[in-house]
Amino acid sequence: MKTKTMIVLIVALSASAIPTASADEGMWLLTNPPRQQLQSRYGFTFSQQWLEHMQKSAVRFTGASGSLISPSGLVLTNHHVGRSAIGKLSSAEHDFIKNGFYAKSLDDELKCTDLTLDTLWSIKDVTKRIKSAATGDMTLSQANTARRQMMSAIEQESQDETGLLSQVVTLYNGGQYHLYSYKRYTDVRLVFAPEQQIAAFGGDIDNFEYPRYCADFSIFRIYEDGKPLKNEHYLRWSDTGAAENELAFIFGHPGRTSRLETVAQLEFTRDTSMPFDMAWLFRREVELQAFMGRSAEYNRIGQTRIKGVANGRKARVGMMGGLLDPELMRRKRDDEQRLRASFEGTSSADNPWDRVARAMQAYTSFYRQQAAINGVFRGGLTGYAMTLVRMAQELPKPSSERLREYRDTALPRIHQRLNSTAPIYDALEVDSLTSALIGLAWTYGADHPVVQTALGGRSPRARAEQLILGSSLKDVQVRRTLADGGWAAIEASDDPLIMLARSLESHTRELRTRYEDEVQAVQRQAYAQIAAARFALDGDSVYPDATGTLRLSYGPIADWEEMGKKIPSFTNIGGLYERAELRKGEQEFILPESWIKARSRLDPATPMNFICKGDVIGGNSGSPIVNAKGEVIGLVFDGNIHMLVGRYAYDERTNRTIAVDARLIKSALKNVYGTTRIINEINDASKTP
Amino acid sequence: MKTKTMIVLIVALSASAIPTASADEGMWLLTNPPRQQLQSRYGFTFSQQWLEHMQKSAVRFTGASGSLISPSGLVLTNHHVGRSAIGKLSSAEHDFIKNGFYAKSLDDELKCTDLTLDTLWSIKDVTKRIKSAATGDMTLSQANTARRQMMSAIEQESQDETGLLSQVVTLYNGGQYHLYSYKRYTDVRLVFAPEQQIAAFGGDIDNFEYPRYCADFSIFRIYEDGKPLKNEHYLRWSDTGAAENELAFIFGHPGRTSRLETVAQLEFTRDTSMPFDMAWLFRREVELQAFMGRSAEYNRIGQTRIKGVANGRKARVGMMGGLLDPELMRRKRDDEQRLRASFEGTSSADNPWDRVARAMQAYTSFYRQQAAINGVFRGGLTGYAMTLVRMAQELPKPSSERLREYRDTALPRIHQRLNSTAPIYDALEVDSLTSALIGLAWTYGADHPVVQTALGGRSPRARAEQLILGSSLKDVQVRRTLADGGWAAIEASDDPLIMLARSLESHTRELRTRYEDEVQAVQRQAYAQIAAARFALDGDSVYPDATGTLRLSYGPIADWEEMGKKIPSFTNIGGLYERAELRKGEQEFILPESWIKARSRLDPATPMNFICKGDVIGGNSGSPIVNAKGEVIGLVFDGNIHMLVGRYAYDERTNRTIAVDARLIKSALKNVYGTTRIINEINDASKTP
Repeated sequence: MKTKTMIVLIVALSASAIPTASADEGMWLLTNPPRQQLQSRYGFTFSQQWLEHMQKSAVRFTGASGSLISPSGLVLTNHHVGRSAIGKLSSAEHDFIKNGFYAKSLDDELKCTDLTLDTLWSIKDVTKRIKSAATGDMTLSQANTARRQMMSAIEQESQDETGLLSQVVTLYNGGQYHLYSYKRYTDVRLVFAPEQQIAAFGGDIDNFEYPRYCADFSIFRIYEDGKPLKNEHYLRWSDTGAAENELAFIFGHPGRTSRLETVAQLEFTRDTSMPFDMAWLFRREVELQAFMGRSAEYNRIGQTRIKGVANGRKARVGMMGGLLDPELMRRKRDDEQRLRASFEGTSSADNPWDRVARAMQAYTSFYRQQAAINGVFRGGLTGYAMTLVRMAQELPKPSSERLREYRDTALPRIHQRLNSTAPIYDALEVDSLTSALIGLAWTYGADHPVVQTALGGRSPRARAEQLILGSSLKDVQVRRTLADGGWAAIEASDDPLIMLARSLESHTRELRTRYEDEVQAVQRQAYAQIAAARFALDGDSVYPDATGTLRLSYGPIADWEEMGKKIPSFTNIGGLYERAELRKGEQEFILPESWIKARSRLDPATPMNFICKGDVIGGNSGSPIVNAKGEVIGLVFDGNIHMLVGRYAYDERTNRTIAVDARLIKSALKNVYGTTRIINEINDASKTP
Repeated sequence: MKTKTMIVLIVALSASAIPTASADEGMWLLTNPPRQQLQSRYGFTFSQQWLEHMQKSAVRFTGASGSLISPSGLVLTNHHVGRSAIGKLSSAEHDFIKNGFYAKSLDDELKCTDLTLDTLWSIKDVTKRIKSAATGDMTLSQANTARRQMMSAIEQESQDETGLLSQVVTLYNGGQYHLYSYKRYTDVRLVFAPEQQIAAFGGDIDNFEYPRYCADFSIFRIYEDGKPLKNEHYLRWSDTGAAENELAFIFGHPGRTSRLETVAQLEFTRDTSMPFDMAWLFRREVELQAFMGRSAEYNRIGQTRIKGVANGRKARVGMMGGLLDPELMRRKRDDEQRLRASFEGTSSADNPWDRVARAMQAYTSFYRQQAAINGVFRGGLTGYAMTLVRMAQELPKPSSERLREYRDTALPRIHQRLNSTAPIYDALEVDSLTSALIGLAWTYGADHPVVQTALGGRSPRARAEQLILGSSLKDVQVRRTLADGGWAAIEASDDPLIMLARSLESHTRELRTRYEDEVQAVQRQAYAQIAAARFALDGDSVYPDATGTLRLSYGPIADWEEMGKKIPSFTNIGGLYERAELRKGEQEFILPESWIKARSRLDPATPMNFICKGDVIGGNSGSPIVNAKGEVIGLVFDGNIHMLVGRYAYDERTNRTIAVDARLIKSALKNVYGTTRIINEINDASKTP
């Protein structure tokens, strides 16, 4: 198969007329799409029908995205989105994560244990009703409650009326409220999954990197009444695939952005919190590697932990790269200046930007200490100890006066955790606690009373051994007894971890209270004002921060520059085999047997992954990428490292979405896996007008 | 072969009578060995003859140790000590590092290109002569010069008289001066080396860890007048090998300890400098791993750098573990209290401990900034840029007024470096500089003028690309032209790195001057006083800090406890094969062919490595370990992670030396390598009385 160019839309680099959103920025509401930008920049126009078709073909996974690709409920998403469901269908005998899965017939499709999918059926603006719920004589908190109650009422009303799952979405931090109604599907079956090795080829090493070579897709089917869904809306497959510079559209569910954050808060993140957190993660990653190097067993028990740490570290590296870009900060400052104008003349006490700045100043004075002491109680056993001590203190209070996580409604979760029989590994617990104690000493200074209490006269390592090996909190029964025994049991306990938690509880509580009062409360109020100021000024001419709901992003398929060289937009199957050869011997780069055998049947020139400018963030995984005709040309599965700063701002020079090319999916289904049935279904679906 | 116990000396755990040296602590002078401790603790006595025999059998490598093991000049040391010499003898055709080497006959022994070995022939106390050189009317600096001149005179005099290489060693920070005279040998030939894979089995993963499985030895021969040396003194081989709890003696050349450092300085290291340096190293290690993950080429060019970083990180992890041990600090405080008594009544301005404390306080205020800005100019190209700028500023001054490294005597080194054609890798330079710029922003705060200058309005990554790719300092000729052109050329240069160095030079110089004036000068003077105070109180009843000269350490072969379990003292060949199996697929744990083939000929019970309590530090690598009869039972090649704090203090609970068992060496030579000639020579040597 050769890459042919069908419609290459010429990229007109004229400046956009939008005040703050530059270039191909934005996760746009489908109720307010960037018509003007698309027309002026790309000469692209679309009908309301086109948009509705896209909306109803998009599928919401929990925290992720997908799309319908046949009139019989076939759903395309990433392998990593479907991974948990695939894992739950696997057994020691049938490891579908490792070996992949293909249902040769409809009857072979495997029902997922708890996978729920939604399609967005209608959107309604309910701003007026919700805003009117709060009247001028209410306090801030009363107004909040009134609005919450109105939201619930509207949701209930809609659900009763339509039978659809109904959720009110708060946009622009309260500038608008929309009612989203979903068709919810609970019978979802696994149709196809490739082997994890090819879906996540390059593993954690390649995560957030580009060029990439991942077949990160999986296929499910929605059933209704025990039969494949009969759906009117679904995406056709492009015959020709994507081309360089072609305008591409992404429909998906970006989870959360914080693009309204003030410069003061961004500076706090850049100069204080993130450097501290990153230093902690860098250290932990190296420590865990050393730990895992000790034995095959340690290597096994450290896997999950190090993945989380490495992922968190990588995400922050990307964000930090952006935060340290003076140009990004300049743009933020300019935008803030513009908004601040509307508060001109207000006293600093009333100015929300100044209030956030002061809160950040306060937070700077104790952020590191709070993070460090919380680190000590984030371990498996130390976590149990602190939970037990806190629970004994909180339960005697009325529910509404307790710390949030100990209120009556939250207690089942606490008990579930305390009753967990998930394995606890002494060696890993000791390693984590040693690390946390070192971090504590570095942050407070080794002679600080908190550190002296924590160390109890020993070195971090010796103390961690003493505490972990000497504790009996590994035993569920011991935890139960302490939980049921109330404060008397906690006070009488000589378990070394309970004693540690007891002696440091008031200190950690004090820091938490300071955070809630001096930082969080100020932020909540101030950001509501800032959002209102922006909304008053720009209305909905800018997109709202992501909320995990359906959005449209757009931008051409385009390379970016690094080291003075262009990083090409497309990779191909030939490159996959080259990379596997180059990285021979590394676990992350081992090709599955199926791909080794299929090599002669595959055209090395077939595009594998590509990049485009569309603005995405976590939650967009599995989003379909379509061309101007609304045909599938790719599948979002990642962003490059520069995409990560997208939480705070979009930079079109370097921010890129990474996608699986639709041609790769078809080629793999046909030439590697011989899944005739699926290929036919996709082809037939694409033929229907 | 089975482990048999011959002489197991009973360890009497009576407290030692020495005021500060606890337990098996100490790197003792051979002129003042720990007779009393050995007798009272172990009932061990020895003759002057025994000691002299040890002294003359010990061999000094540059920065490391070895020993004579036959009357024909055969020398035993570590593979990692001989590695550089072995590498220089290798070629693309004959890679002796990778494949090992065995000279089947005397004629096959390969002359090393520049390996020089010394044996210590005589020691003379010259304290009186040197002290008398400085008279009461001299300033501190004059006194220093007078003593230096006297040292040179004594060295020259001795050299002329004896023909021996003569060096005055400053002990107890000037409490004593000894003249050490060495026989120097310059014709050294390679006899045997195992493959690097077995010498450093476990690689960086296992470095400083235990249990271990390394055949870290190599064998050289000293020649004189083109013939094997005829030496009277050499070590016999023990028939039976080491046994659990047996008292073991280490004769070697520990490089540097800082056990006199004041509590204030240790606290500075613990709370300020080392956490900062470690955070930098942790970050750099992870960044380099990510860099090396990008391609096979990047993987190759990052190897050397990451090894250095990982090694530095590991060493500091070990030291930090000790510094954070409140018990170690308590002992330091107690000792300091004892010494401070002799300064009772002096004003704080005259009190050396108070002066060091104030210097540390001053250093705390700028240590991190200095480290961060120096980090920016530690890269290959940024380093050239700063050197060129500084050189242009310094050369016009009289030599004595220049910064140390630009004085006339030092200039050849500068030019050698500027003329170096060692490859410079753009990608690695960009990665390093990006990292350094991030570190700079985190340390100063991103809005600091120094950071703004360094970033020039770009993100760290974009700026690093601009600077590195835009610079022509990679070209030796460009560097030469700039070096020869003086300040005019530097001032006229528009090379972006020269411009950067030019704009930040005065800032880095200011920090350097502050360090030299406010910290270093104070330390030098104060430590001389503190050492004098200690010497006045304890005389030579305590050992002096290590000086890279021959010392005796002692202590039994003994396990230690971790995670409530004993780490056994010995490993064996069976364990080696088990570990190789367990870590299959990892580069560091691949056995060489020779060991795979030899497996059936090897007794799995043969001891491989062992640990003992003898006090060692870097420089001790290759030291022989002998039993009470002075027979070789092992070869020091490493210490455990707890040994690393040995720079500041010895802790007999956990500090352990790691050694290759002499039985392993013999078994490998015989059963793996079939080196009959060497085996015979060692056996014959051991038979002679």
